[in-house]
Amino acid sequence: MVNTTYQVQGMTCGHCVSAVTAEVGGIAGVHDVQVDLATGRVTVDSDQPLDTEVVRAAVDEAGYNLVDA
Amino acid sequence: MVNTTYQVQGMTCGHCVSAVTAEVGGIAGVHDVQVDLATGRVTVDSDQPLDTEVVRAAVDEAGYNLVDA
Repeated sequence: MVNTTYQVQGMTCGHCVSAVTAEVGGIAGVHDVQVDLATGRVTVDSDQPLDTEVVRAAVDEAGYNLVDA
Repeated sequence: MVNTTYQVQGMTCGHCVSAVTAEVGGIAGVHDVQVDLATGRVTVDSDQPLDTEVVRAAVDEAGYNLVDA
């Protein structure tokens, strides 16, 4: 299991958290997504290391921006 | 047709707008709900004057607060 933390910009409420959790949770191989609204930190458990561009696309799809590390 | 404007506190994003629109739009006799996110102003078209407590309950159900006029 791989655990990766991303930084997401623009989430303002619980609905935003749900949208990001659902989109990122839909990526193949993702088992768990934890979002901290206050910090914008998104922690993802996955089978294999994830392609950052796939995560970025999911975050974009939800309507938010992945901040480059 | 009656047009009434309410002030709602706590909406931060488009999802919040959707939640309030759906709940208030579900009140019997309501035809249209327009939410301005920037100001928190919610404008409601209804058949008859609405009971403010019914509107308050719908806004509460969505997770926000009606500000007393």
